Amino acid sequence: MPGHIQSLERAAAILRLLAGGERRLGLSDVASSLGLAKGTTHGILRTLQQEGFVEQDPVSGKYQLGAELLRLGNSYLDVHELRARALVWTDDLARSSGEAAYLGVLHQQGVLIVHHVFRPDDSRQVLEVGAMQPLHSTALGKVLAAFDPVAHSEAAEGERTALTGRTVTTAEDFEAVLELARARGWAADLEETWEGVASVAAPVYDRRRMPVGAVGITGAVERVCEGTEIRARLVAAVRDCARAVSRDLGAGRF
Amino acid sequence: MPGHIQSLERAAAILRLLAGGERRLGLSDVASSLGLAKGTTHGILRTLQQEGFVEQDPVSGKYQLGAELLRLGNSYLDVHELRARALVWTDDLARSSGEAAYLGVLHQQGVLIVHHVFRPDDSRQVLEVGAMQPLHSTALGKVLAAFDPVAHSEAAEGERTALTGRTVTTAEDFEAVLELARARGWAADLEETWEGVASVAAPVYDRRRMPVGAVGITGAVERVCEGTEIRARLVAAVRDCARAVSRDLGAGRF
Repeated sequence: MPGHIQSLERAAAILRLLAGGERRLGLSDVASSLGLAKGTTHGILRTLQQEGFVEQDPVSGKYQLGAELLRLGNSYLDVHELRARALVWTDDLARSSGEAAYLGVLHQQGVLIVHHVFRPDDSRQVLEVGAMQPLHSTALGKVLAAFDPVAHSEAAEGERTALTGRTVTTAEDFEAVLELARARGWAADLEETWEGVASVAAPVYDRRRMPVGAVGITGAVERVCEGTEIRARLVAAVRDCARAVSRDLGAGRF
Repeated sequence: MPGHIQSLERAAAILRLLAGGERRLGLSDVASSLGLAKGTTHGILRTLQQEGFVEQDPVSGKYQLGAELLRLGNSYLDVHELRARALVWTDDLARSSGEAAYLGVLHQQGVLIVHHVFRPDDSRQVLEVGAMQPLHSTALGKVLAAFDPVAHSEAAEGERTALTGRTVTTAEDFEAVLELARARGWAADLEETWEGVASVAAPVYDRRRMPVGAVGITGAVERVCEGTEIRARLVAAVRDCARAVSRDLGAGRF
Protein backbone atom coordinates (compact mmCIF):
# COMPACT_ATOMS: atom_id res chain seq x y z
CA MET A 1 0.00 0.00 0.00
CA PRO A 2 1.32 3.47 -0.78
CA GLY A 3 2.17 5.77 2.10
CA HIS A 4 2.97 3.01 4.56
CA ILE A 5 6.10 3.49 6.56
CA GLN A 6 8.56 0.65 6.35
CA SER A 7 10.40 1.24 9.63
CA LEU A 8 7.06 1.23 11.47
CA GLU A 9 5.96 -1.99 9.79
CA ARG A 10 9.28 -3.54 10.75
CA ALA A 11 8.96 -2.33 14.34
CA ALA A 12 5.47 -3.88 14.53
CA ALA A 13 6.87 -7.15 13.14
CA ILE A 14 9.56 -7.15 15.87
CA LEU A 15 6.93 -6.64 18.57
CA ARG A 16 4.80 -9.46 17.14
CA LEU A 17 7.87 -11.70 17.07
CA LEU A 18 8.64 -10.92 20.72
CA ALA A 19 4.98 -11.57 21.65
CA GLY A 20 5.07 -15.16 20.40
CA GLY A 21 7.27 -18.20 20.78
CA GLU A 22 10.56 -17.51 22.53
CA ARG A 23 9.75 -14.02 23.82
CA ARG A 24 13.35 -13.27 24.83
CA LEU A 25 15.51 -12.89 21.75
CA GLY A 26 18.99 -11.62 20.95
CA LEU A 27 19.70 -9.11 18.17
CA SER A 28 20.82 -11.83 15.74
CA ASP A 29 17.72 -13.93 16.37
CA VAL A 30 15.44 -10.96 15.70
CA ALA A 31 17.34 -9.95 12.55
CA SER A 32 17.43 -13.45 11.08
CA SER A 33 13.81 -14.24 11.97
CA LEU A 34 12.62 -11.19 10.05
CA GLY A 35 15.23 -11.30 7.27
CA LEU A 36 16.61 -7.87 8.17
CA ALA A 37 20.18 -6.59 8.36
CA LYS A 38 21.60 -6.47 11.87
CA GLY A 39 22.26 -2.72 11.70
CA THR A 40 18.69 -1.97 10.63
CA THR A 41 17.33 -4.23 13.35
CA HIS A 42 19.55 -2.64 15.99
CA GLY A 43 18.37 0.87 15.08
CA ILE A 44 14.72 -0.18 15.41
CA LEU A 45 15.31 -2.06 18.68
CA ARG A 46 17.17 0.90 20.20
CA THR A 47 14.34 3.26 19.35
CA LEU A 48 11.73 0.80 20.63
CA GLN A 49 13.76 0.49 23.83
CA GLN A 50 14.01 4.26 24.24
CA GLU A 51 10.21 4.49 23.92
CA GLY A 52 9.62 1.66 26.44
CA PHE A 53 8.19 -0.80 23.90
CA VAL A 54 11.02 -3.28 24.41
CA GLU A 55 13.36 -3.93 27.32
CA GLN A 56 16.84 -5.40 27.19
CA ASP A 57 17.96 -7.82 29.88
CA PRO A 58 21.15 -6.32 31.35
CA VAL A 59 22.74 -9.74 31.87
CA SER A 60 21.90 -11.70 28.73
CA GLY A 61 21.48 -8.71 26.40
CA LYS A 62 18.28 -10.29 25.08
CA TYR A 63 15.24 -8.23 24.16
CA GLN A 64 11.68 -8.67 25.42
CA LEU A 65 8.46 -6.65 25.29
CA GLY A 66 8.42 -3.45 27.38
CA ALA A 67 6.22 -1.92 30.06
CA GLU A 68 4.87 0.88 27.85
CA LEU A 69 2.79 -1.75 26.02
CA LEU A 70 0.99 -2.64 29.25
CA ARG A 71 0.29 1.02 29.99
CA LEU A 72 -1.03 1.63 26.45
CA GLY A 73 -3.04 -1.62 26.52
CA ASN A 74 -4.72 -0.41 29.69
CA SER A 75 -5.48 2.93 28.05
CA TYR A 76 -7.02 1.03 25.14
CA LEU A 77 -9.38 -0.67 27.61
CA ASP A 78 -10.24 2.64 29.29
CA VAL A 79 -11.61 4.05 26.06
CA HIS A 80 -13.36 0.82 25.00
CA GLU A 81 -17.04 1.69 24.88
CA LEU A 82 -18.27 -1.90 24.55
CA ARG A 83 -16.25 -2.98 27.58
CA ALA A 84 -17.40 0.00 29.66
CA ARG A 85 -21.04 -0.76 28.88
CA ALA A 86 -20.57 -4.46 29.62
CA LEU A 87 -18.83 -4.18 33.02
CA VAL A 88 -21.93 -4.30 35.20
CA TRP A 89 -23.81 -6.80 33.03
CA THR A 90 -20.95 -9.32 32.88
CA ASP A 91 -20.55 -9.02 36.65
CA ASP A 92 -24.22 -9.91 37.04
CA LEU A 93 -23.81 -12.76 34.54
CA ALA A 94 -20.93 -14.28 36.52
CA ARG A 95 -22.98 -14.02 39.73
CA SER A 96 -26.19 -15.45 38.30
CA SER A 97 -24.47 -18.26 36.39
CA GLY A 98 -21.80 -19.02 38.98
CA GLU A 99 -19.27 -19.25 36.11
CA ALA A 100 -16.53 -17.05 34.65
CA ALA A 101 -17.84 -14.45 32.19
CA TYR A 102 -15.96 -13.16 29.14
CA LEU A 103 -16.35 -10.38 26.62
CA GLY A 104 -14.51 -10.83 23.32
CA VAL A 105 -13.99 -8.91 20.10
CA LEU A 106 -12.54 -9.88 16.75
CA HIS A 107 -8.83 -9.08 16.50
CA GLN A 108 -6.66 -10.36 13.66
CA GLN A 109 -7.47 -14.08 13.27
CA GLY A 110 -8.96 -14.66 16.71
CA VAL A 111 -11.02 -13.47 19.64
CA LEU A 112 -9.37 -10.89 21.90
CA ILE A 113 -10.66 -11.07 25.48
CA VAL A 114 -11.38 -7.49 26.57
CA HIS A 115 -13.11 -8.32 29.84
CA HIS A 116 -13.08 -11.33 32.16
CA VAL A 117 -15.02 -11.70 35.40
CA PHE A 118 -13.76 -14.48 37.64
CA ARG A 119 -16.02 -17.34 38.64
CA PRO A 120 -17.54 -16.18 41.93
CA ASP A 121 -15.91 -18.71 44.24
CA ASP A 122 -12.68 -18.67 46.18
CA SER A 123 -10.63 -20.57 43.61
CA ARG A 124 -7.40 -19.16 42.21
CA GLN A 125 -7.97 -17.89 38.68
CA VAL A 126 -5.74 -16.23 36.11
CA LEU A 127 -6.96 -13.09 34.40
CA GLU A 128 -7.28 -13.59 30.65
CA VAL A 129 -7.81 -9.99 29.52
CA GLY A 130 -5.57 -9.46 26.48
CA ALA A 131 -5.42 -13.18 25.69
CA MET A 132 -6.51 -14.55 22.31
CA GLN A 133 -8.92 -17.44 21.75
CA PRO A 134 -9.47 -19.36 18.50
CA LEU A 135 -12.38 -18.32 16.29
CA HIS A 136 -13.30 -21.80 15.12
CA SER A 137 -13.68 -23.70 18.40
CA THR A 138 -14.76 -21.35 21.19
CA ALA A 139 -18.31 -20.15 21.78
CA LEU A 140 -17.19 -16.50 21.57
CA GLY A 141 -15.35 -17.22 18.31
CA LYS A 142 -18.24 -19.08 16.72
CA VAL A 143 -20.61 -16.24 17.57
CA LEU A 144 -18.31 -13.71 15.93
CA ALA A 145 -17.81 -15.97 12.88
CA ALA A 146 -21.57 -16.55 12.59
CA PHE A 147 -22.65 -12.93 12.86
CA ASP A 148 -19.70 -10.79 11.70
CA PRO A 149 -18.76 -11.22 8.00
CA VAL A 150 -15.13 -10.18 8.61
CA ALA A 151 -14.77 -12.74 11.40
CA HIS A 152 -16.43 -15.30 9.15
CA SER A 153 -13.78 -14.78 6.45
CA GLU A 154 -10.98 -15.10 8.99
CA ALA A 155 -12.45 -18.30 10.44
CA ALA A 156 -13.38 -19.82 7.07
CA GLU A 157 -10.00 -19.06 5.46
CA GLY A 158 -7.84 -19.70 8.54
CA GLU A 159 -6.56 -23.01 9.76
CA ARG A 160 -8.99 -24.88 12.01
CA THR A 161 -6.66 -26.87 14.25
CA ALA A 162 -8.07 -29.87 16.14
CA LEU A 163 -7.56 -28.80 19.76
CA THR A 164 -9.47 -31.78 21.18
CA GLY A 165 -11.10 -34.83 19.65
CA ARG A 166 -14.33 -32.82 19.37
CA THR A 167 -13.08 -29.76 17.49
CA VAL A 168 -14.97 -29.16 14.26
CA THR A 169 -12.34 -28.79 11.54
CA THR A 170 -13.86 -29.40 8.10
CA ALA A 171 -15.30 -26.46 6.16
CA GLU A 172 -18.66 -28.16 5.69
CA ASP A 173 -19.15 -29.06 9.35
CA PHE A 174 -17.95 -25.63 10.44
CA GLU A 175 -20.51 -23.86 8.20
CA ALA A 176 -23.23 -26.11 9.65
CA VAL A 177 -22.16 -25.07 13.16
CA LEU A 178 -22.41 -21.39 12.19
CA GLU A 179 -25.78 -21.98 10.53
CA LEU A 180 -27.07 -23.47 13.79
CA ALA A 181 -25.65 -20.50 15.75
CA ARG A 182 -27.47 -18.06 13.44
CA ALA A 183 -30.73 -20.00 13.76
CA ARG A 184 -30.49 -20.18 17.57
CA GLY A 185 -28.92 -16.77 18.20
CA TRP A 186 -26.14 -18.29 20.30
CA ALA A 187 -23.24 -20.75 20.07
CA ALA A 188 -21.74 -23.42 22.31
CA ASP A 189 -18.33 -25.02 22.72
CA LEU A 190 -18.64 -28.54 24.14
CA GLU A 191 -15.07 -29.57 24.95
CA GLU A 192 -14.00 -28.41 21.47
CA THR A 193 -11.20 -26.14 22.78
CA TRP A 194 -10.27 -27.55 26.19
CA GLU A 195 -11.04 -31.03 27.51
CA GLY A 196 -13.63 -30.86 30.28
CA VAL A 197 -14.60 -27.26 29.56
CA ALA A 198 -17.80 -25.99 27.92
CA SER A 199 -18.86 -22.47 27.02
CA VAL A 200 -21.83 -20.61 25.62
CA ALA A 201 -21.91 -17.15 24.03
CA ALA A 202 -24.23 -14.69 22.30
CA PRO A 203 -23.66 -11.67 20.04
CA VAL A 204 -23.62 -8.03 21.14
CA TYR A 205 -24.91 -5.40 18.69
CA ASP A 206 -24.34 -1.65 18.52
CA ARG A 207 -26.77 1.10 17.59
CA ARG A 208 -26.30 0.33 13.90
CA ARG A 209 -27.25 -3.32 14.59
CA MET A 210 -23.69 -4.36 13.73
CA PRO A 211 -22.25 -7.30 15.71
CA VAL A 212 -19.39 -5.72 17.72
CA GLY A 213 -18.50 -8.51 20.12
CA ALA A 214 -19.61 -11.60 21.96
CA VAL A 215 -20.33 -12.29 25.59
CA GLY A 216 -20.36 -15.68 27.26
CA ILE A 217 -19.53 -17.95 30.14
CA THR A 218 -17.05 -20.80 30.43
CA GLY A 219 -16.86 -23.57 33.00
CA ALA A 220 -16.48 -27.24 33.81
CA VAL A 221 -18.63 -29.35 31.52
CA GLU A 222 -20.14 -31.10 34.58
CA ARG A 223 -21.61 -27.79 35.79
CA VAL A 224 -22.38 -26.07 32.49
CA CYS A 225 -23.98 -29.01 30.67
CA GLU A 226 -26.92 -31.27 31.28
CA GLY A 227 -26.36 -34.42 29.27
CA THR A 228 -24.92 -33.30 25.92
CA GLU A 229 -26.41 -29.79 25.95
CA ILE A 230 -25.72 -26.48 27.70
CA ARG A 231 -28.19 -25.96 30.55
CA ALA A 232 -31.12 -23.87 29.33
CA ARG A 233 -30.92 -21.45 32.29
CA LEU A 234 -27.27 -20.65 31.39
CA VAL A 235 -28.15 -20.08 27.74
CA ALA A 236 -30.90 -17.72 28.90
CA ALA A 237 -28.54 -15.86 31.28
CA VAL A 238 -25.94 -15.33 28.54
CA ARG A 239 -28.53 -14.16 26.01
CA ASP A 240 -30.10 -11.82 28.58
CA CYS A 241 -26.66 -10.33 29.22
CA ALA A 242 -25.91 -9.89 25.49
CA ARG A 243 -29.26 -8.17 24.97
CA ALA A 244 -28.69 -5.86 27.96
CA VAL A 245 -25.24 -4.80 26.71
CA SER A 246 -26.62 -4.29 23.19
CA ARG A 247 -29.40 -2.06 24.52
CA ASP A 248 -26.83 -0.06 26.48
CA LEU A 249 -24.90 0.39 23.25
CA GLY A 250 -28.00 1.82 21.64
CA ALA A 251 -29.28 -1.19 19.71
CA GLY A 252 -33.07 -1.16 19.39
CA ARG A 253 -35.14 -3.90 20.96
CA PHE A 254 -36.73 -4.90 17.67
CA MET B 1 20.72 10.45 19.74
CA PRO B 2 22.28 8.90 16.65
CA GLY B 3 20.64 5.87 15.11
CA HIS B 4 17.17 6.64 16.42
CA ILE B 5 14.40 6.40 13.91
CA GLN B 6 12.30 9.52 13.62
CA SER B 7 9.15 7.92 12.24
CA LEU B 8 9.16 5.44 15.15
CA GLU B 9 9.63 8.20 17.71
CA ARG B 10 6.75 10.09 16.13
CA ALA B 11 4.55 6.98 16.13
CA ALA B 12 5.30 6.48 19.84
CA ALA B 13 4.41 10.14 20.50
CA ILE B 14 1.06 9.64 18.72
CA LEU B 15 0.29 6.58 20.86
CA ARG B 16 1.20 8.49 24.04
CA LEU B 17 -1.04 11.35 22.92
CA LEU B 18 -3.97 8.97 22.33
CA ALA B 19 -3.35 7.34 25.75
CA GLY B 20 -3.86 10.60 27.66
CA GLY B 21 -6.42 13.36 27.75
CA GLU B 22 -8.98 13.22 24.98
CA ARG B 23 -8.19 9.73 23.71
CA ARG B 24 -10.28 10.11 20.56
CA LEU B 25 -8.64 12.57 18.20
CA GLY B 26 -9.03 13.61 14.59
CA LEU B 27 -6.10 13.84 12.15
CA SER B 28 -5.80 17.62 12.55
CA ASP B 29 -5.79 17.41 16.35
CA VAL B 30 -3.01 14.82 16.31
CA ALA B 31 -0.95 16.78 13.77
CA SER B 32 -1.26 20.11 15.59
CA SER B 33 -0.69 18.61 19.06
CA LEU B 34 2.63 17.16 17.92
CA GLY B 35 3.61 19.97 15.55
CA LEU B 36 3.69 17.65 12.54
CA ALA B 37 2.51 18.14 8.98
CA LYS B 38 -0.87 16.55 8.25
CA GLY B 39 0.55 14.36 5.46
CA THR B 40 3.29 12.99 7.73
CA THR B 41 0.80 12.35 10.50
CA HIS B 42 -1.61 10.62 8.15
CA GLY B 43 1.10 8.26 6.87
CA ILE B 44 2.03 7.26 10.43
CA LEU B 45 -1.61 6.86 11.51
CA ARG B 46 -2.42 4.70 8.48
CA THR B 47 0.51 2.41 9.22
CA LEU B 48 -0.39 2.23 12.91
CA GLN B 49 -3.95 1.41 11.91
CA GLN B 50 -2.80 -1.32 9.52
CA GLU B 51 -0.78 -2.88 12.36
CA GLY B 52 -3.68 -2.70 14.84
CA PHE B 53 -2.07 -0.07 17.10
CA VAL B 54 -4.76 2.50 16.40
CA GLU B 55 -8.38 2.19 15.31
CA GLN B 56 -10.45 4.73 13.41
CA ASP B 57 -14.08 5.26 14.32
CA PRO B 58 -16.02 4.69 11.09
CA VAL B 59 -18.59 7.39 11.93
CA SER B 60 -16.53 10.27 13.36
CA GLY B 61 -13.24 9.41 11.60
CA LYS B 62 -11.44 9.95 14.91
CA TYR B 63 -8.50 7.81 15.97
CA GLN B 64 -8.09 5.88 19.22
CA LEU B 65 -5.72 3.22 20.54
CA GLY B 66 -6.02 -0.23 18.96
CA ALA B 67 -6.55 -3.79 20.14
CA GLU B 68 -3.02 -4.96 19.26
CA LEU B 69 -1.74 -2.93 22.23
CA LEU B 70 -3.88 -4.98 24.62
CA ARG B 71 -2.62 -8.23 23.09
CA LEU B 72 1.02 -7.10 23.32
CA GLY B 73 0.52 -5.75 26.85
CA ASN B 74 -0.76 -9.16 27.88
CA SER B 75 2.28 -10.80 26.28
CA TYR B 76 4.50 -8.42 28.25
CA LEU B 77 2.88 -9.70 31.45
CA ASP B 78 3.29 -13.33 30.39
CA VAL B 79 7.05 -12.93 30.22
CA HIS B 80 7.33 -10.80 33.38
CA GLU B 81 9.42 -12.88 35.77
CA LEU B 82 8.73 -10.71 38.84
CA ARG B 83 4.98 -10.94 38.26
CA ALA B 84 5.09 -14.70 37.67
CA ARG B 85 7.00 -15.22 40.91
CA ALA B 86 4.65 -12.92 42.84
CA LEU B 87 1.31 -14.44 41.73
CA VAL B 88 0.90 -16.94 44.54
CA TRP B 89 2.41 -14.71 47.25
CA THR B 90 0.22 -11.70 46.46
CA ASP B 91 -2.81 -13.99 46.44
CA ASP B 92 -1.87 -15.14 49.94
CA LEU B 93 -1.27 -11.51 50.97
CA ALA B 94 -4.76 -10.45 49.86
CA ARG B 95 -6.29 -13.38 51.74
CA SER B 96 -4.33 -12.89 54.96
CA SER B 97 -4.74 -9.10 55.01
CA GLY B 98 -8.31 -9.00 53.69
CA GLU B 99 -7.25 -6.10 51.44
CA ALA B 100 -6.39 -5.58 47.78
CA ALA B 101 -2.77 -6.47 46.94
CA TYR B 102 -0.65 -4.75 44.29
CA LEU B 103 2.69 -5.33 42.61
CA GLY B 104 4.29 -2.28 40.99
CA VAL B 105 7.43 -1.46 39.00
CA LEU B 106 9.05 1.81 37.99
CA HIS B 107 7.93 2.96 34.55
CA GLN B 108 8.69 6.43 33.21
CA GLN B 109 7.77 8.88 36.00
CA GLY B 110 5.48 6.61 37.99
CA VAL B 111 4.57 3.18 39.30
CA LEU B 112 3.13 0.76 36.76
CA ILE B 113 0.78 -1.79 38.35
CA VAL B 114 1.73 -5.21 36.94
CA HIS B 115 -0.44 -7.31 39.24
CA HIS B 116 -3.56 -6.63 41.29
CA VAL B 117 -5.42 -9.08 43.49
CA PHE B 118 -8.92 -8.00 44.43
CA ARG B 119 -9.90 -7.56 48.06
CA PRO B 120 -11.36 -10.95 49.00
CA ASP B 121 -14.96 -9.90 49.55
CA ASP B 122 -17.93 -9.73 47.21
CA SER B 123 -17.59 -6.04 46.38
CA ARG B 124 -17.33 -4.84 42.79
CA GLN B 125 -13.73 -3.85 42.03
CA VAL B 126 -11.99 -2.54 38.92
CA LEU B 127 -8.80 -4.20 37.79
CA GLU B 128 -5.89 -1.75 37.85
CA VAL B 129 -3.25 -3.76 35.99
CA GLY B 130 -1.60 -1.38 33.51
CA ALA B 131 -2.59 1.71 35.48
CA MET B 132 -0.01 4.21 36.71
CA GLN B 133 0.31 5.53 40.28
CA PRO B 134 2.32 8.56 41.42
CA LEU B 135 5.80 7.95 42.83
CA HIS B 136 5.67 10.66 45.48
CA SER B 137 2.45 9.86 47.33
CA THR B 138 1.71 6.12 47.14
CA ALA B 139 3.31 3.47 49.33
CA LEU B 140 4.52 1.56 46.26
CA GLY B 141 5.99 4.74 44.79
CA LYS B 142 7.75 5.77 47.98
CA VAL B 143 9.32 2.33 48.29
CA LEU B 144 10.65 2.54 44.74
CA ALA B 145 11.90 6.11 45.29
CA ALA B 146 13.56 5.12 48.57
CA PHE B 147 15.34 2.01 47.33
CA ASP B 148 15.84 2.47 43.56
CA PRO B 149 18.17 5.37 42.57
CA VAL B 150 16.52 5.80 39.16
CA ALA B 151 13.08 6.04 40.77
CA HIS B 152 14.53 8.47 43.30
CA SER B 153 15.70 10.81 40.55
CA GLU B 154 12.31 10.69 38.85
CA ALA B 155 10.48 11.41 42.10
CA ALA B 156 12.93 14.08 43.29
CA GLU B 157 13.01 15.91 39.96
CA GLY B 158 9.37 15.43 39.03
CA GLU B 159 6.42 17.51 40.12
CA ARG B 160 4.94 16.45 43.47
CA THR B 161 1.30 17.42 43.09
CA ALA B 162 -0.81 17.78 46.26
CA LEU B 163 -3.47 15.10 45.69
CA THR B 164 -4.99 15.50 49.14
CA GLY B 165 -4.32 17.84 52.07
CA ARG B 166 -1.82 15.28 53.39
CA THR B 167 0.39 14.82 50.32
CA VAL B 168 4.05 15.54 51.05
CA THR B 169 5.18 17.99 48.38
CA THR B 170 8.33 19.84 49.51
CA ALA B 171 11.74 18.37 48.66
CA GLU B 172 12.90 18.41 52.28
CA ASP B 173 9.83 16.65 53.67
CA PHE B 174 9.86 14.14 50.82
CA GLU B 175 13.50 13.19 51.51
CA ALA B 176 12.63 12.73 55.20
CA VAL B 177 9.80 10.37 54.18
CA LEU B 178 12.22 8.33 52.06
CA GLU B 179 14.78 8.30 54.88
CA LEU B 180 12.15 6.85 57.21
CA ALA B 181 11.21 4.25 54.58
CA ARG B 182 14.86 3.19 54.26
CA ALA B 183 15.24 2.97 58.04
CA ARG B 184 12.05 0.91 58.47
CA GLY B 185 12.28 -1.14 55.27
CA TRP B 186 8.74 -0.21 54.23
CA ALA B 187 6.60 2.85 53.37
CA ALA B 188 3.05 3.97 54.06
CA ASP B 189 0.54 6.25 52.37
CA LEU B 190 -1.91 7.69 54.88
CA GLU B 191 -4.57 9.42 52.77
CA GLU B 192 -1.80 11.13 50.77
CA THR B 193 -3.13 9.95 47.39
CA TRP B 194 -6.84 9.28 47.94
CA GLU B 195 -9.00 10.58 50.80
CA GLY B 196 -9.96 7.74 53.09
CA VAL B 197 -7.46 5.28 51.63
CA ALA B 198 -4.22 4.04 53.20
CA SER B 199 -1.57 1.72 51.83
CA VAL B 200 1.65 0.04 52.90
CA ALA B 201 4.38 -1.43 50.69
CA ALA B 202 7.82 -3.06 50.84
CA PRO B 203 10.62 -3.56 48.30
CA VAL B 204 11.25 -6.70 46.26
CA TYR B 205 14.87 -7.58 45.39
CA ASP B 206 16.31 -9.82 42.70
CA ARG B 207 19.29 -12.17 42.83
CA ARG B 208 21.69 -9.25 42.46
CA ARG B 209 20.05 -7.54 45.48
CA MET B 210 18.70 -4.85 43.18
CA PRO B 211 15.25 -3.40 44.02
CA VAL B 212 13.06 -4.48 41.09
CA GLY B 213 9.61 -3.63 42.35
CA ALA B 214 7.34 -3.07 45.30
CA VAL B 215 4.48 -5.06 46.76
CA GLY B 216 1.76 -3.72 49.01
CA ILE B 217 -1.86 -3.54 50.09
CA THR B 218 -4.38 -0.71 49.86
CA GLY B 219 -7.66 -0.25 51.68
CA ALA B 220 -10.00 1.93 53.67
CA VAL B 221 -8.12 3.86 56.34
CA GLU B 222 -10.60 2.61 58.97
CA ARG B 223 -9.54 -0.98 58.31
CA VAL B 224 -5.86 -0.54 57.48
CA CYS B 225 -4.94 1.90 60.24
CA GLU B 226 -5.07 1.86 64.02
CA GLY B 227 -5.01 5.45 65.19
CA THR B 228 -2.56 7.26 62.92
CA GLU B 229 -0.44 4.24 62.01
CA ILE B 230 -0.75 1.21 59.72
CA ARG B 231 -1.71 -1.87 61.77
CA ALA B 232 1.43 -3.81 62.68
CA ARG B 233 0.03 -7.15 61.47
CA LEU B 234 -0.56 -5.65 58.01
CA VAL B 235 2.98 -4.23 57.87
CA ALA B 236 4.27 -7.68 58.81
CA ALA B 237 2.12 -9.40 56.16
CA VAL B 238 3.35 -7.05 53.41
CA ARG B 239 7.01 -7.43 54.43
CA ASP B 240 6.64 -11.23 54.62
CA CYS B 241 5.23 -11.20 51.10
CA ALA B 242 8.04 -8.97 49.78
CA ARG B 243 10.66 -11.25 51.33
CA ALA B 244 9.01 -14.37 49.90
CA VAL B 245 8.90 -12.92 46.38
CA SER B 246 12.52 -11.74 46.71
CA ARG B 247 13.63 -15.21 47.76
CA ASP B 248 11.77 -16.70 44.79
CA LEU B 249 13.66 -14.27 42.55
CA GLY B 250 16.92 -15.59 43.96
CA ALA B 251 17.76 -12.89 46.52
CA GLY B 252 19.71 -14.31 49.45
CA ARG B 253 18.23 -14.24 52.92
CA PHE B 254 21.12 -12.27 54.37
